Amino acid sequence: MERIYIQEVATRDGFQIEDQFVPTDEKVKLINKLSSTGVDKIEVTSFVSPKAVPNLRDAEEVMRRIDRQRGVTYTTLIPNIKGAERALECKADEVNLVASVSETHNRKNVRKTTDESFENFKDISSYLSGTNVQMNGTLATTFGCPFEGTIDEERVLSLIEQYLTLGVSGITLADTTGMATPKQVYHLCEKVRNRWPRLPITLHFHNTRGMGLANVMEGIRAGVDRFDASLGGLGGCPFAPGATGNICTEDLVHMLAFMDYDMRVDLDELIETSKYLESILNHEVPGQVMKAGKISDLYPVS
Amino acid sequence: MERIYIQEVATRDGFQIEDQFVPTDEKVKLINKLSSTGVDKIEVTSFVSPKAVPNLRDAEEVMRRIDRQRGVTYTTLIPNIKGAERALECKADEVNLVASVSETHNRKNVRKTTDESFENFKDISSYLSGTNVQMNGTLATTFGCPFEGTIDEERVLSLIEQYLTLGVSGITLADTTGMATPKQVYHLCEKVRNRWPRLPITLHFHNTRGMGLANVMEGIRAGVDRFDASLGGLGGCPFAPGATGNICTEDLVHMLAFMDYDMRVDLDELIETSKYLESILNHEVPGQVMKAGKISDLYPVS
Repeated sequence: MERIYIQEVATRDGFQIEDQFVPTDEKVKLINKLSSTGVDKIEVTSFVSPKAVPNLRDAEEVMRRIDRQRGVTYTTLIPNIKGAERALECKADEVNLVASVSETHNRKNVRKTTDESFENFKDISSYLSGTNVQMNGTLATTFGCPFEGTIDEERVLSLIEQYLTLGVSGITLADTTGMATPKQVYHLCEKVRNRWPRLPITLHFHNTRGMGLANVMEGIRAGVDRFDASLGGLGGCPFAPGATGNICTEDLVHMLAFMDYDMRVDLDELIETSKYLESILNHEVPGQVMKAGKISDLYPVS
Repeated sequence: MERIYIQEVATRDGFQIEDQFVPTDEKVKLINKLSSTGVDKIEVTSFVSPKAVPNLRDAEEVMRRIDRQRGVTYTTLIPNIKGAERALECKADEVNLVASVSETHNRKNVRKTTDESFENFKDISSYLSGTNVQMNGTLATTFGCPFEGTIDEERVLSLIEQYLTLGVSGITLADTTGMATPKQVYHLCEKVRNRWPRLPITLHFHNTRGMGLANVMEGIRAGVDRFDASLGGLGGCPFAPGATGNICTEDLVHMLAFMDYDMRVDLDELIETSKYLESILNHEVPGQVMKAGKISDLYPVS
C-alpha cells in the first residue's frame, strides 16, 4: 500500500476568507477534532497582520490552546520576520513561507517583488536557524496566474532552488486559483521529482474548475505523496478574483481510501468533523461525500 | 491530437428529475443550441411512460421540433417495444437500451430481472432490424450499486456480450450513482478494450462524490474516447437515493480542451448554453467553469 500524507488547511486557507469571524473556541475545537482524525499536518492559522486578515486575529490564542497530538505537524503561514517571531513564541512545528511564481500575483498578494520576498525569507531563515521550527516553501500560482496566465516551468524550478538554498524541508506547489490541468500536473511534477528525487513535495490544489481530484491522481502518478486539502472544500484566495474552494479533504481521503492508499486517516471521523464545520459556519460547504455518503454506504433494498 | 467525442445528456438524464416540467419550447431551444456547439451526440429525451416520467411527456413533440444538424446523433432512451415504435416514428438516429448490472437496481429501475430486460431487448432488436435506427446498450451500475455494493467485472463482460449478440453499435458503461474510483475505471476499461478493441465504448459518469473528471482521465488512459456529460452538471437518478448530477459537459470540455484534446466543440458557446440552461431552470446548477470562467480568462492587473 502506497503511503499518502494528508495535510489540512481549512482553518487557514478556508477561514481567512469567510464572511464572518469564526469564534476562537470553535477553531480550537475543530482543530482538536482534526488532530484526532489522523491527518499528518494542520495549517492551524496565519501570523499575518490582524488588519490584513481579521478572521485570523486570534492566531496566538488558537496556537496556544489546541491540544497537540504526536505525529501531527502544526504549521502556520508567516509573511515576514514578525510572523516568524510569533510562530516561534507559540512553538509552531513549522512555518510556511509563500511566494508567487507570478510577479504580478506576488505584488498583489504581499506587495513585494518575488526577489524582495526571498530577501525577506533569508532573514526568516537566519532568525529560525538553530531553533526547532522547520520551514516549508510554498510557490503560489505554480500552474497558472489569473493575471499573467501561463507560468514558465523553468521559473518554478529556479524558485524551488532558491527555497532549497534557504534550508526549507519541503516545497509546496500551489495551484492558487485552480488553473492546473492533469497533464500539466504530471509533466511538472515529473520534472521536479527527477531533479530532486528525495525532496518532499506537497501539491496544493483548488477545485475552482472541477479538476482538483483529477490533478491529485496525476500528482500521485508522478510520485508525489503529500496533498493539502480543506475540510468541506472550504477556501479560496482573497487576492485572486473568481477563486473558489480548495479540494475537499474528505472527498480526497474517500477517493484514495477506496483505492487502498495508506493514509492512516479515519474517514468517518473526518466526515463527522466536516459536518461539525458546516454547523459552525451556518452555510453549506462544497464537499460532496458529506452529502452523498461513502460509496460503501448501501441503501436498504426494501 | 487525440479525438474525444462529447455526448450530451442534460435534456434526458437532467430534465427527468427536475422538480418542474421544462416547457417544450425551452427544451427545443436548448437542444438546438446544443446541436450548434458541436457535441457529437445528444440524448434528446426518453420514450417512457408519461406517468413514470412526467417531465418527458413531450418526447414526441421535442423530437419532431428540433433542428437536426449533420454530424450530430440524436438518441433517445427507450425501455420497451412501445418506446422503439415511438422512436422509429420520430426518426431517432439511435435508441439507448438500459439494463443494470445489479439485479436489485434493475428491478428497482424497470421492475424486471436483467434476463427479462434482455428478452425485451431481443424484441426491440427484431423490431428495429432493417431500419436506420441504431441501438446503443447501456449498463447501469457498472461500477457499483447503491443497494448491492460491489459489482462483479465478469458479469459486466457477460452483459456486454449479450448486448453485442443483439447487434448494438456501441456500449455505455454507466456509473449511475457515482461510485466509480479512478483505479477501477482504468482496470475495467482496459479489460473491456482488450476483449473488444474496436467496440465503441462510452463512459457515463456521475460526479456524486467528486471523482467524475478523475475517472474521465483514467478512461482516456485506458483508450476510451466517448463520454456522456450533462450541461451544467445537471442530472441524477430517481431510483438511486443520494445520487446527484452527472459530470458537467462544459467542465469536461474545458479540462480536455486545455490539454489539447480534439473535440470540435465550441467551449464558449457551451458555457453560454449552460448559462441559458440555468436561466430556464430558476436554480443554480453544479457546473464550475460557468461560474469561475475558463483558465484562459485573465483578470486585469489594474
